[in-house]
Amino acid sequence: MKIEQVEKFIGKQDVAFIASVDAEGYPNIKAMLAPRKTVGAKTIYFSTNTSSLKVEQFKANPKSGVYFYNKGLLKYEGLLLTGDIEVIEDQTTKDMLWQDGDEKYYSGGVTDPDYCVLKFVAKEGRYYSNLNSESFAIE
Amino acid sequence: MKIEQVEKFIGKQDVAFIASVDAEGYPNIKAMLAPRKTVGAKTIYFSTNTSSLKVEQFKANPKSGVYFYNKGLLKYEGLLLTGDIEVIEDQTTKDMLWQDGDEKYYSGGVTDPDYCVLKFVAKEGRYYSNLNSESFAIE
Repeated sequence: MKIEQVEKFIGKQDVAFIASVDAEGYPNIKAMLAPRKTVGAKTIYFSTNTSSLKVEQFKANPKSGVYFYNKGLLKYEGLLLTGDIEVIEDQTTKDMLWQDGDEKYYSGGVTDPDYCVLKFVAKEGRYYSNLNSESFAIE
Repeated sequence: MKIEQVEKFIGKQDVAFIASVDAEGYPNIKAMLAPRKTVGAKTIYFSTNTSSLKVEQFKANPKSGVYFYNKGLLKYEGLLLTGDIEVIEDQTTKDMLWQDGDEKYYSGGVTDPDYCVLKFVAKEGRYYSNLNSESFAIE
């Protein structure tokens, strides 16, 4: 699996699944809107609500898994990336990632304190296609 | 969220997402075929490959999250259940859950050593619908 193929696959999905680990050590999964920005397949930015449970969880434990999934007519494909999440609240990054329409989620606009950014940095990947899987490192 | 509603929602999904925690503490996500059997919203059985990475992970750490997701025309719904997974290899349970067509995944049939069952027992749930969420206990 080449990084270019990983990037292309991510770019085609409109939903991402993100996992955190809660205070009792249980993995939590949540569907997210597609990433706001992807740099290589290594750094992935999501926008989310500061008040959400997963932000609280990532502040306590940055370990994360991000998963993309596609069920086509002939095959299914899944891509798991594991790495760490940083909760970003600086205004420069928030400005950079803001898009028209985000007011729907954050009524106060780009400076709404409930708007924040999750910055995920991948360490490892695993790609599944039908019954096969392949692990790969991310430089 | 009533347990009957949770059950009904699970019954309508054809894919489940299952999370484990790996040896380094990172949450892993994997898409699964719909549950093979569901008892209330508390006990959920999946079939899987004994040789798979997640079986190894659940043997070391039973903590799990199971997630169901539906994106409709008007709203999205997500359901997270957290609880523990037991890897079941006894033949009685394997016989009970075997279905025609499983030979596609386990060429040796119902006694194929690569065929096993994951028994998930939920402790807590969280239901998401559009921008709202609601936690509930599972008795």
